[in-house]
Amino acid sequence: MHMTRKRVAVAGASGYAGGELLRHLLAHPDVEIGALTGASNAGERLGVLQPHLVPLAERVLERTDIGTLGGHDVVFLALPHGQSGALAAELQAADPTTVVIDCGADFRLQDAAEWERFYGGDHAGTWPYGLPELPGQREVLRGATRVAVPGCYPTVSTLTLAPAVAAGLVEPDVVVVAASGTSGAGKAPKAHLLGSEVMGNASAYGVGGTHRHTPEITQNLTGLLPEQATGQRVTVSFTPLLVPMPRGILATCSARLVEGVTADDVREAYVKAYADEPFVHVLPEGLWPQTKSVTGSNAVHVQATVDEAAGRLVAVGAVDNLAKGTAGAAVQCMNLALGLDEGTGLTTIGVAP
Amino acid sequence: MHMTRKRVAVAGASGYAGGELLRHLLAHPDVEIGALTGASNAGERLGVLQPHLVPLAERVLERTDIGTLGGHDVVFLALPHGQSGALAAELQAADPTTVVIDCGADFRLQDAAEWERFYGGDHAGTWPYGLPELPGQREVLRGATRVAVPGCYPTVSTLTLAPAVAAGLVEPDVVVVAASGTSGAGKAPKAHLLGSEVMGNASAYGVGGTHRHTPEITQNLTGLLPEQATGQRVTVSFTPLLVPMPRGILATCSARLVEGVTADDVREAYVKAYADEPFVHVLPEGLWPQTKSVTGSNAVHVQATVDEAAGRLVAVGAVDNLAKGTAGAAVQCMNLALGLDEGTGLTTIGVAP
Amino acid sequence: MHMTRKRVAVAGASGYAGGELLRHLLAHPDVEIGALTGASNAGERLGVLQPHLVPLAERVLERTDIGTLGGHDVVFLALPHGQSGALAAELQAADPTTVVIDCGADFRLQDAAEWERFYGGDHAGTWPYGLPELPGQREVLRGATRVAVPGCYPTVSTLTLAPAVAAGLVEPDVVVVAASGTSGAGKAPKAHLLGSEVMGNASAYGVGGTHRHTPEITQNLTGLLPEQATGQRVTVSFTPLLVPMPRGILATCSARLVEGVTADDVREAYVKAYADEPFVHVLPEGLWPQTKSVTGSNAVHVQATVDEAAGRLVAVGAVDNLAKGTAGAAVQCMNLALGLDEGTGLTTIGVAP
Amino acid sequence: MHMTRKRVAVAGASGYAGGELLRHLLAHPDVEIGALTGASNAGERLGVLQPHLVPLAERVLERTDIGTLGGHDVVFLALPHGQSGALAAELQAADPTTVVIDCGADFRLQDAAEWERFYGGDHAGTWPYGLPELPGQREVLRGATRVAVPGCYPTVSTLTLAPAVAAGLVEPDVVVVAASGTSGAGKAPKAHLLGSEVMGNASAYGVGGTHRHTPEITQNLTGLLPEQATGQRVTVSFTPLLVPMPRGILATCSARLVEGVTADDVREAYVKAYADEPFVHVLPEGLWPQTKSVTGSNAVHVQATVDEAAGRLVAVGAVDNLAKGTAGAAVQCMNLALGLDEGTGLTTIGVAP
Repeated sequence: MHMTRKRVAVAGASGYAGGELLRHLLAHPDVEIGALTGASNAGERLGVLQPHLVPLAERVLERTDIGTLGGHDVVFLALPHGQSGALAAELQAADPTTVVIDCGADFRLQDAAEWERFYGGDHAGTWPYGLPELPGQREVLRGATRVAVPGCYPTVSTLTLAPAVAAGLVEPDVVVVAASGTSGAGKAPKAHLLGSEVMGNASAYGVGGTHRHTPEITQNLTGLLPEQATGQRVTVSFTPLLVPMPRGILATCSARLVEGVTADDVREAYVKAYADEPFVHVLPEGLWPQTKSVTGSNAVHVQATVDEAAGRLVAVGAVDNLAKGTAGAAVQCMNLALGLDEGTGLTTIGVAP
Repeated sequence: MHMTRKRVAVAGASGYAGGELLRHLLAHPDVEIGALTGASNAGERLGVLQPHLVPLAERVLERTDIGTLGGHDVVFLALPHGQSGALAAELQAADPTTVVIDCGADFRLQDAAEWERFYGGDHAGTWPYGLPELPGQREVLRGATRVAVPGCYPTVSTLTLAPAVAAGLVEPDVVVVAASGTSGAGKAPKAHLLGSEVMGNASAYGVGGTHRHTPEITQNLTGLLPEQATGQRVTVSFTPLLVPMPRGILATCSARLVEGVTADDVREAYVKAYADEPFVHVLPEGLWPQTKSVTGSNAVHVQATVDEAAGRLVAVGAVDNLAKGTAGAAVQCMNLALGLDEGTGLTTIGVAP
Repeated sequence: MHMTRKRVAVAGASGYAGGELLRHLLAHPDVEIGALTGASNAGERLGVLQPHLVPLAERVLERTDIGTLGGHDVVFLALPHGQSGALAAELQAADPTTVVIDCGADFRLQDAAEWERFYGGDHAGTWPYGLPELPGQREVLRGATRVAVPGCYPTVSTLTLAPAVAAGLVEPDVVVVAASGTSGAGKAPKAHLLGSEVMGNASAYGVGGTHRHTPEITQNLTGLLPEQATGQRVTVSFTPLLVPMPRGILATCSARLVEGVTADDVREAYVKAYADEPFVHVLPEGLWPQTKSVTGSNAVHVQATVDEAAGRLVAVGAVDNLAKGTAGAAVQCMNLALGLDEGTGLTTIGVAP
Repeated sequence: MHMTRKRVAVAGASGYAGGELLRHLLAHPDVEIGALTGASNAGERLGVLQPHLVPLAERVLERTDIGTLGGHDVVFLALPHGQSGALAAELQAADPTTVVIDCGADFRLQDAAEWERFYGGDHAGTWPYGLPELPGQREVLRGATRVAVPGCYPTVSTLTLAPAVAAGLVEPDVVVVAASGTSGAGKAPKAHLLGSEVMGNASAYGVGGTHRHTPEITQNLTGLLPEQATGQRVTVSFTPLLVPMPRGILATCSARLVEGVTADDVREAYVKAYADEPFVHVLPEGLWPQTKSVTGSNAVHVQATVDEAAGRLVAVGAVDNLAKGTAGAAVQCMNLALGLDEGTGLTTIGVAP
């Protein structure tokens, strides 16, 4: 007795985000997959570009334009930065009810100056931010027609620190070191991303606060500060690492504890914050997150503790950068936008080992 | 409105096969997960042993015996070799309608002498062999109460060579070199399976026809020989390799071509053999299987060609050793045994990249 | 015209540290390899236990005792914690000139209370600490007959932060997140170290300051504080990560900058500190360390920068945990102890890709 | 008291073969590293392109032409196919004593028709083939001024099968399935070689005898046939696999045994064939090669057995494709060409784990 299936299109279907969107959408009972578009590979068969998507093997990529993408209930944009704005405007001019879900960065930041500093060029605007686990955000996303899907690092960093920041347990000055698999860097061939380079290798990049996800983490955590901290801003020292795995991010986050905060306070804050969240799982005490547990799933695993000698809270979170870090979040937001059950077509179960 | 959910138990729920069974069963609409049992880890929580199975995190492993396993509609046995027979007999003595699906080797072989030679000890018997893609086997499995799930190497080797052998395109003398991920060796800690050993390393083992899956491959392929070859036996040179990945088997199979057989004959035989098979996917011409395309899925990808200079057919198949290679096949057989649609709860879509 | 070759023994020759010691010693022009000992594997051939050490394939492991280890110029101990003390005493009672180089933790810490807190049991004492790059330490090690080889995490963490701490550029309150390959955990088989578990997986362990290398890092950095900070103690928040590679540690270190410190100050401090160090390589500006560049080598690669928005210094270091992190350091210390050129038999060149 | 150091140049110093040549040459006591050249990256610093080669960090790549490469005693060419011939002619026209060692394929094949079939274009000629382990070949290489370094797959396939073929133990009809790490595919960025694609993945390519190394294996093995087989030609079914590791090839080779040949015959042939070879190591009985044992080394590990049921010899060999498979072989040949001890600067010891 399903509702009429919604017709969805994916722009950028040959990349990693696009492939993962399709993997999720194929498992979704309430959608029907419409147009799939590419750029230079328009005209090619998906069976060659994404051989793991067997049911779509014979589908051919079309051009990314209003002609192919128009007429769908939902359009997912998995495009390079800067390409979403004009297309979204065209789609919604043609039909204002079209839900446009942007997996790129164009509409995530509220602060135009930060956009210009980290991305360059003009700021395209700000859309509803697709992290339903932020306070009040679920309501914003229900029925929305535009959603900016969060970045992968911001998703896990924010959710790993949110309970501590929101409860005022830590100073607003955090350190995040996040080890990521390689798919976050995309499918465009670059020498430093070759298997020969990344296997057996761990490296740091974007060191010193230069990674583009830094202002997004800052924005999220600042928004979580408790009332008494109004007007303050969270300082974020963010260092991403590349480690030899295809998927997954493990974020190690720490901050100086506010005086008097105990391990019990921390545990209580985390358990309480996520008690009703379907996709954030606070692990049993003593167990620490590992990325493999969330491979392919929409879950985030979180654990936190107190380092008394160092006077810091240390919290660790794990996410699949392509799933809850991108495509799963996009589907979760689509569900909210369409008024479906938020978890439809999503799983909390990872593919392990 | 689903049928009444069947109640299923898993014996050996802490291992890799057991975990993968649960991952599949959690996605199955028509089952309800009953008892989960272990051996030395009875009493432990699944959240610690299998942290990727979030919905079962609070479940506690029970002892593996008739007391805990009785009273279920289906019991999956994921136990060390030799432990299935007595338990199965007890279960079906208590209730002859109980479906027992054995993921171990005990009941796969028809030839007691082969059993004794490769496994040692007495042969426990032969159960319906759980490879529905073999001719006539689907019918044998429908309504069965006992199923012997095939070994992972035999599944992919058999399906990769079956069309050529059955159509009489090759001499009955095959060479199989199959590169496997490490999970096929199980979760019991052994020094040569440590990450430090296997990463960056490819090795051969069981060389010279000593691997226990050799007689099973031989049995399957011999059973496929066309009528005019009645009484013949296929000779199998099988070499397994261990390569640095957690899941997946890539089987490279070859055999001398019968005189006059062309590439077109081969293509036609493969396409025809698997045209109606939901889980065997013959790739588009020119595209070769890769294990990642089937990670986590119940699909087998197959491709074949002719090496004219060498006078051989070369066929390559890919499978996820834990999914279609074990747990997916087990669920596929359960579906047949229970009269459900064969593909219920299963997917052909891999988790890639 | 080499000096007479020194006769060296290795206790614990079947493990990873022992194997790496032998790899280094086989390349050393001034030593001759004497007794090789094991524990449960005494009597086995090295060709089976360490197949990469071809020239020693026929050597048989002996028992670890004074009878086999006595009579050598140098004895390397690569034993489980707690086993070095008594053996060292026996060796030097028999011949006080014997150089004993302990790759274990027994003699690294100066503070007995810290020893008891992190390791338990009685503190065995403190030996000259084998990090020649610390101020004045090279002189301590010249001619020493006992050396405590540093832990792998302390080596890279200390060298990555030393210039900043010693020059007073940062507050004495540091955060270290260090991603390690799996060989640091040794060769004893444990389920969570299986290849099936670690491939595709990043995880945290020893979170909250509980890892045993924490007090060693604290001790090293505190010893580097400039004079005006006498009596202070460096606070260390240390989180180790396990990532899917066999060797290597990448340490991401940060600390709040002292007011007014610039990126130029930082660069100058690092370049100056390591200008004459043969094994510490400050990378060209803009290039960040990666573990593969130091695989198999005795080099440490270091880079540092300033995050102005966060007000922190961020420094990253890479080391091979088995080479400069253990066996290379041991040989470097042996060279100093024996009065050889410090770099004899060692290389700064990594095996990449 | 070394001889005067020979001055060597490397053309193609930014690639994997070039980097590995430099790693070997830096360890060679009798050479001095002269010009290093590149193509599009001429003008860049080696510290950026090959950060593991610390002693050469400040060296700048020059243009690949006679101006920069002339005036050296030895020139190594690590260039794309087709670029070696003209340059070699120029170099030796300028100085006929210049030793030119080509790591490319241009001069490996004797049969122009095979060249044209597999590589296309005109056959440039045939140079002394750089596999000293072939009968009589060591003598050919002593004092040679031109050497064609063998391909990586042909090196390991040939050495793994040579004793059996030369002793007439098998039918001249062999099957080789060789699992390779990714560095054999070079450093040019291609989507299917990205870490995201290759990690967790095994795949086949060049199936059906289409890989360019096929005629080279055929040529080598045919040349090894015993006298009574004069005029025969070995048939080779060769399938290369790509597996998730940066280096190493494991070749699984088999052939039908000649009637009456026993396991003892096989063992004896292998042990005898390689008794005096410094770089080919027949493993102890029961132990099978693994690529990690030869990582970074010039050794080839070999083992063979008899599969009685299948009537086949099965032999397995392991090599590091960049070391003995390319750069190590090149240095070994240089040593012969210059009249040095064949093993100078080379090691049989792998970097493991």
